[in-house]
Amino acid sequence: MKTGIVKPRTLSGFMELLPKEQLIFNQIRDTLSAVYRQYGFLPLDTPVLEHSEILLTKSGGETEKQIYRFSKGDTDLTMRFDLTVPLAKYVAKNYSALTFPFRRYQIGKVYRGERAQKGRFREFYQSDIDIIGDGSLALMNDAEIPSIIYDIFNRLGLKDFTIRINNRKVLTGFFAMLGLDNNAEGIMRIVDKLEKIGEEAVEKELKELGVSEEHCKKILHFINFKGTNEETIAFLNSLKADNEIFDLGVEELDFVRTAIGSYGVPEENFHIDLTIARGLDYYTGTVYETSFNKHPEIGSICSGGRYENLAGYYTEKQLPGVGISIGLTRLFYILNEKEYLRTDTSAPSDVLVIPMTDDVTPSIQISNELRNANINTQIYFEKKKFKAKIGYADKLSIPFAIFLGEDELAQQKVALKNLTTGEQQVISLEEAITTIKQSLSEKGNTTIIDTELTSR
Amino acid sequence: MKTGIVKPRTLSGFMELLPKEQLIFNQIRDTLSAVYRQYGFLPLDTPVLEHSEILLTKSGGETEKQIYRFSKGDTDLTMRFDLTVPLAKYVAKNYSALTFPFRRYQIGKVYRGERAQKGRFREFYQSDIDIIGDGSLALMNDAEIPSIIYDIFNRLGLKDFTIRINNRKVLTGFFAMLGLDNNAEGIMRIVDKLEKIGEEAVEKELKELGVSEEHCKKILHFINFKGTNEETIAFLNSLKADNEIFDLGVEELDFVRTAIGSYGVPEENFHIDLTIARGLDYYTGTVYETSFNKHPEIGSICSGGRYENLAGYYTEKQLPGVGISIGLTRLFYILNEKEYLRTDTSAPSDVLVIPMTDDVTPSIQISNELRNANINTQIYFEKKKFKAKIGYADKLSIPFAIFLGEDELAQQKVALKNLTTGEQQVISLEEAITTIKQSLSEKGNTTIIDTELTSR
Repeated sequence: MKTGIVKPRTLSGFMELLPKEQLIFNQIRDTLSAVYRQYGFLPLDTPVLEHSEILLTKSGGETEKQIYRFSKGDTDLTMRFDLTVPLAKYVAKNYSALTFPFRRYQIGKVYRGERAQKGRFREFYQSDIDIIGDGSLALMNDAEIPSIIYDIFNRLGLKDFTIRINNRKVLTGFFAMLGLDNNAEGIMRIVDKLEKIGEEAVEKELKELGVSEEHCKKILHFINFKGTNEETIAFLNSLKADNEIFDLGVEELDFVRTAIGSYGVPEENFHIDLTIARGLDYYTGTVYETSFNKHPEIGSICSGGRYENLAGYYTEKQLPGVGISIGLTRLFYILNEKEYLRTDTSAPSDVLVIPMTDDVTPSIQISNELRNANINTQIYFEKKKFKAKIGYADKLSIPFAIFLGEDELAQQKVALKNLTTGEQQVISLEEAITTIKQSLSEKGNTTIIDTELTSR
Repeated sequence: MKTGIVKPRTLSGFMELLPKEQLIFNQIRDTLSAVYRQYGFLPLDTPVLEHSEILLTKSGGETEKQIYRFSKGDTDLTMRFDLTVPLAKYVAKNYSALTFPFRRYQIGKVYRGERAQKGRFREFYQSDIDIIGDGSLALMNDAEIPSIIYDIFNRLGLKDFTIRINNRKVLTGFFAMLGLDNNAEGIMRIVDKLEKIGEEAVEKELKELGVSEEHCKKILHFINFKGTNEETIAFLNSLKADNEIFDLGVEELDFVRTAIGSYGVPEENFHIDLTIARGLDYYTGTVYETSFNKHPEIGSICSGGRYENLAGYYTEKQLPGVGISIGLTRLFYILNEKEYLRTDTSAPSDVLVIPMTDDVTPSIQISNELRNANINTQIYFEKKKFKAKIGYADKLSIPFAIFLGEDELAQQKVALKNLTTGEQQVISLEEAITTIKQSLSEKGNTTIIDTELTSR
């Protein structure tokens, strides 16, 4: 290398995609936005940097270690590590300018200085939706969230997933019925790890917390109940009458699962699972996790729940809400690693126009008409051999090429080549537009995720 | 305030929009992407953070002061301050995986710790396109860039702008003809400030650089030439024959302005302006600036040019290119400040469904059908008075409301209210869908920028 040349490199834990991957990533991101918009969510875009005292609502060891925090002049700055704290700040700050229920989505990068390892990112996209009420928020909103998640995965072509729901009140109430009220939060955090660490380890940790052998068995028996949604509700109903919180939780859970059905989410895609607890104390009612059936090892690809108060750190207003977050970068990484993504549908343009005469003016005019017909069009201007020009379209998977030579121009026609089939025809520009658009609309019906592969 | 409550605030110089503004901002951003895609540009998304030695290619006082740089563990990190340096790194790093000419767009946030003042941002979006060749790049690409910019502003509804073009070789050659070869870069930087500081100040600075009175007059006379594009080319042609670089520059400029015409950009929207020099040494040929005719005080809203080598800092490959950058956050700020943006077309959803019965199931089903018809639909679930429900739609400028009471459900109809006209009718869901879609398609034809206001 020449002196002074610096080796180009990207920070580890920072995803930087090649163009073809980036096209697919963007398609997924745009699908998320489109579905959020279909449900009336407003976009939000908060700064990546905030005053440290604004983001670090809980001075805690783990958070502090993982954040990117620094000073510039007198200002103590932190890069956002999630989209929830900035939302809380935003809603508290703009309370009087907002209309409640405030439904917002935000798809943005967040930063965590975690130990770098395969599949773990330090810069990654989160895709969040939340519905925030002013003082109160109807329970029906808790049923809409799974419907949105279902629509998203369905549109992407992922069929093989389960939205698992539970209600924290059911767990809290059950622990209270065992007389374990004081330890409820601690138990919740241990129970939440069941899938990760297994039953034995959970039992061990519960005992360390002071839970008796008998109570451990009862807790594990309870959360491990397996059955259809109806059976689970029947099981829960049979335990009612002892504890108000438990009873309320069961009613909420029953209401929400019935309403999810009204939204048209198939039974096979949502399931009441009493092991779902969510580690965060923040959640107070409905909780969600979503698993990829074939790959339980991945853990939840999308989680959230109902909370009683979003922004107590910044305002005295009571702002209950419900929301869910998709770890978009991680989801993309998994789908890409497992080769579930269709790569054949992404190209920089729909057609490459190749001028075969010195004067490129007709090629420019024809390209303008193609673009006016909503066909993404690139002209190849470089002086290269014919093979190199076609090779360019091939390498980029551009599906069509149009050649414009003296003959075609004299006949007021174009030579349209379908680069997938190899078929070439000399036709009018109008006919070429029709052919290209038809092929595009067929492609538009395929999904980003190859459903055959994921369900094989 | 309660003890422990922290006042919610956002860093100064960081734009954080209210929902209605954010909707419009996103519409503008999406228009930019759509036009870039129409011309076959590939999306790119590079990290916000990079190794400092990667970004700080030129260790320079001004850059150093303005950047956000910090350490995390042993790593020296910098937040990107533009999208060009990351592009250079990306192309050098992925050279063998890319297909050239490599056409990429990137719309992303960049960071500059400048002194905060009105209209100046520390976090702002840049929207860049570049076409990078491997070894060479056809001059025709220089003509495509203004066509893209024209399409963007035209789609946004901004008519009152001029893309001003020049060619650095014309200036360099002219200075050489005066025997000022050695000072060319310095003179270029001073001349570039003409619009900002005025003729007298330019003359003063030129003299300080050692340029004689006679040469100052000649330079100012030359760059101040006013005429149509044709007249300017004729004027330049009359000066040809003395200097190869000058002659080449004139030929390039003539070729580019003719080709811009082939793209269909009207003469009134692009103009050869010999005062355009661009401060950066980086540019070697065509240069662009774009001004808002009514507001010259704003300066260039979009600038760029042709460069000989993108990534010399990272690779020995010769990578010439041409590109342009829109300061999106600043453009939005200006359009918003001057109240040129239509606020009447942005709402979180197209229709608000208001259930008037306890059972909301029919409302959910009807909303599903509306969404399937590509109508963005929100259901109002909160238990509020009727007036509050309608008030919600009004405050958010949602154009339609659908009421579903016992009567409508019994008749299998819906009550559709147009909230702009106040008109209400009880019709079938199919008729309601047709009415809403027609209204949406009419709105779809209006532009984001109110053309009447900008041209008044």
